[in-house]
Amino acid sequence: MATANDQAVAILDPEQTSLLRAVDQAVTGWAADIGAPEIIAPPIYPITDLAKFDVYKNFPHLLFAASPLDVTDAMPEPTDGGLDTDDLRRAVFGLPHATCYGAYLYFEGSSVPADTTVTLLNRCFRNENRYEGLRRLLSFQMREVVAIGSYEHTQEIIAHFTEKIRKFAAALSLDLEKAGASDPFFRNDDGRALLQKLSPLKYEFIADDLAIASVNTHRNFFGERCGIKISGKDEHAYTSCVAFGLERWLSVLTDRYNGDLGRALDAVNGALA
Amino acid sequence: MATANDQAVAILDPEQTSLLRAVDQAVTGWAADIGAPEIIAPPIYPITDLAKFDVYKNFPHLLFAASPLDVTDAMPEPTDGGLDTDDLRRAVFGLPHATCYGAYLYFEGSSVPADTTVTLLNRCFRNENRYEGLRRLLSFQMREVVAIGSYEHTQEIIAHFTEKIRKFAAALSLDLEKAGASDPFFRNDDGRALLQKLSPLKYEFIADDLAIASVNTHRNFFGERCGIKISGKDEHAYTSCVAFGLERWLSVLTDRYNGDLGRALDAVNGALA
Repeated sequence: MATANDQAVAILDPEQTSLLRAVDQAVTGWAADIGAPEIIAPPIYPITDLAKFDVYKNFPHLLFAASPLDVTDAMPEPTDGGLDTDDLRRAVFGLPHATCYGAYLYFEGSSVPADTTVTLLNRCFRNENRYEGLRRLLSFQMREVVAIGSYEHTQEIIAHFTEKIRKFAAALSLDLEKAGASDPFFRNDDGRALLQKLSPLKYEFIADDLAIASVNTHRNFFGERCGIKISGKDEHAYTSCVAFGLERWLSVLTDRYNGDLGRALDAVNGALA
Repeated sequence: MATANDQAVAILDPEQTSLLRAVDQAVTGWAADIGAPEIIAPPIYPITDLAKFDVYKNFPHLLFAASPLDVTDAMPEPTDGGLDTDDLRRAVFGLPHATCYGAYLYFEGSSVPADTTVTLLNRCFRNENRYEGLRRLLSFQMREVVAIGSYEHTQEIIAHFTEKIRKFAAALSLDLEKAGASDPFFRNDDGRALLQKLSPLKYEFIADDLAIASVNTHRNFFGERCGIKISGKDEHAYTSCVAFGLERWLSVLTDRYNGDLGRALDAVNGALA
């Protein structure tokens, strides 16, 4: 009988909260420096919206649906720490496993300047085989910077933030390795899957064997799926995103500073000064 | 066939985001002024944790469970905009409909000083009969200030924040009415339900027919359920909370300033200066 793994979720104490917020503010500062405004997207979407991104084809095992409880007959009562599907109703909303979807849905059906960039923070959810405290949580916070417009713009944003990430990590004395990775988005999209083999569309920044940030090129996949055009052109927008797993930064900084979160916070503030 | 209501969720644009954050910073500023640290709690909990608070007895109709998709046989495929329960698995995690649970779970099994206060912001989820844009969303942001300790402390925090809310609303030219309300928490708890009839445990602050904040007295309900004691005493802690529905503040401020969010933001900043 499936039960909840107590490593799956974490409540952050005040020191952890301050450190995580400081890392987040570093990224929002870089976004503000290039004039990227912030939007707030919800941590739940209509399944019809998530389905536009092929998530149910490409990683159904990672996903959670949000099911209302069935209260028509007997009241649902948790048994053995859970609710059986008999106690649930059909789900029309699902939980996102990444933050950037909110940006594509925000611009859905519109035309945007070729150099559009926004930032957003969201709670994400992943049904993993195993959880490992702050290193691998069921629910975590992912800050993203999302570029939408020309292909050149999407690549400039990736280059710009790659440099920011490298310098920030160096200032924090984190050993950071950049590694090509595959993006399961394009598993069922033959053209893009082939392209990905020729040239990685995803790079991860790895510290202490943990991917704490990534840069992702989606070509015009999301632009097509959300009908986002480049202003003045009859062309679907290209997109890219830069993602930061905030609890993972917290985890590696905690280890790097031997659990002294005050010193880690000083280091983050120093790196930004 | 149930489908997703497109009023249920909202993505906030940059101006809305700035205004919502400004209101949130007002509350975190008041919390900081009294030395209340911030914690971050997840927007999903083991069902066993939520069950401690009788939520499945008292408002099952409001709740969502997070069901993993059943990927054992045929891949689940959304049909008619949703996933049937055949495509779902037993849920062991559930989505919270209020923020303050994170605070009780954070202190679970511990002893706290009699004047403990924390603040936290979370995403909340409610399965409502109808949605109404920012006034009534399926998922929204609730900032809370939670007092834990002596009964006197819980009442002092309520009195302190009641005054803050009144003054803030007045400075923003919002007509605010304070009204007693019933708290469905105690529907199945005879002693407390009776107590509630004698003296309201919940007051709402209503602007434009919308409850934008509330103050809530829980007596020692959460202290008992989470085994939180008052330091140096063999007594379960009392709790109270002050809650702010941030999208609702955004909604009433938008209306009050006739859609001029820049002016609303100036008013918020002016009220705090």
